[in-house]
Amino acid sequence: MDEKKGLLIVISGPSGTGKGTICKSLVGKGDFLISVSATTRQPRQGEVDGVNYYFLTKEEFKTKIENDDFIEYAEVYGNYYGTPKSKVLDCIKNGINVILEIDIQGALKVKKTCPDGVFIFVIPPSMDELRKRISNRGTETPQSLMLRFRSAYEEIKYISRYNYVVVNDTVDMAVKRIQSIIIAEQCRADRRKGKILDLEEEIIDE
Amino acid sequence: MDEKKGLLIVISGPSGTGKGTICKSLVGKGDFLISVSATTRQPRQGEVDGVNYYFLTKEEFKTKIENDDFIEYAEVYGNYYGTPKSKVLDCIKNGINVILEIDIQGALKVKKTCPDGVFIFVIPPSMDELRKRISNRGTETPQSLMLRFRSAYEEIKYISRYNYVVVNDTVDMAVKRIQSIIIAEQCRADRRKGKILDLEEEIIDE
Repeated sequence: MDEKKGLLIVISGPSGTGKGTICKSLVGKGDFLISVSATTRQPRQGEVDGVNYYFLTKEEFKTKIENDDFIEYAEVYGNYYGTPKSKVLDCIKNGINVILEIDIQGALKVKKTCPDGVFIFVIPPSMDELRKRISNRGTETPQSLMLRFRSAYEEIKYISRYNYVVVNDTVDMAVKRIQSIIIAEQCRADRRKGKILDLEEEIIDE
Repeated sequence: MDEKKGLLIVISGPSGTGKGTICKSLVGKGDFLISVSATTRQPRQGEVDGVNYYFLTKEEFKTKIENDDFIEYAEVYGNYYGTPKSKVLDCIKNGINVILEIDIQGALKVKKTCPDGVFIFVIPPSMDELRKRISNRGTETPQSLMLRFRSAYEEIKYISRYNYVVVNDTVDMAVKRIQSIIIAEQCRADRRKGKILDLEEEIIDE
């Protein structure tokens, strides 16, 4: 593993666990960039193109798929979501840590191509709390609510494919846990081979 | 792995890397207790029995060895050092995280009996810096200085047996890294099986 490479940090979890809020709150709180995803869904109130998402038409999105411009993409609830490839790979190559906030389908695809990424599964403190959060969002129809609940139930099953589980009891606590995971991963012995070799060289040189 | 068990965190590294200073600075800065070791060496100025070490005579120490009262013990530079067993195991059983600050011989012994412990190797920013720190301590004879340098060179080789490498460039940074490692380890998916089962039960109950 190349120590000079940045970390690829994937923050994922069922819809309604608050991973979006956590990522917004992470901005500027550590040594990483947060990747902006592309989507064909309609912007929610207050969302800004290029900040929250790159909002694309279905035609624009499909052209990018054909050009292999995404690390992963998926269709979720009838809309496309994707992670633009070139910027993420450039950052990692240049030693910059990158955070991706993606759904579980997408995360599992990224894991296949980047097995040494750091995969974080955000869970609600309880399923009851998850239902409350999705309902309170107020942007869902009864049908889409039911779809999201069922999907969340299914998705919890993928938790064991992840490296870390972060309970989102409060956003501040969840943010602190993710900041800690990033610092700890940078200290992992199998990621610090370069530093170790430097010390060994110093010893040999004497 | 039992989620309700506390973590056993082993902070180790060559003599002079500052692991003692780091552990002193960790007191009260997280969700853990710091185990007090026993030793037969003379107290340094300001060291207090029961706080920095339990200072024992060689006879007392040998009796404890015979009674199997240590998790590990070792003879280093002609003195015995050991980790009292019962208190550490009680804490872990009751969900309390425990930090052991021990030398590399001791850490490797603990790893054999507690492979799911968290093993942290503290290194100096450079070997040159390590030499300066050992020399500045002012408590060493020229012979013991040489012994410590040589031993540090040897010990760096064991770094790959550890889970984490923490560079002690400043004590504050090293402390922050260790705090982060402890929080991250508590979030590891393979340590969170209990929480995951709780959510799954909630799903099945509906």
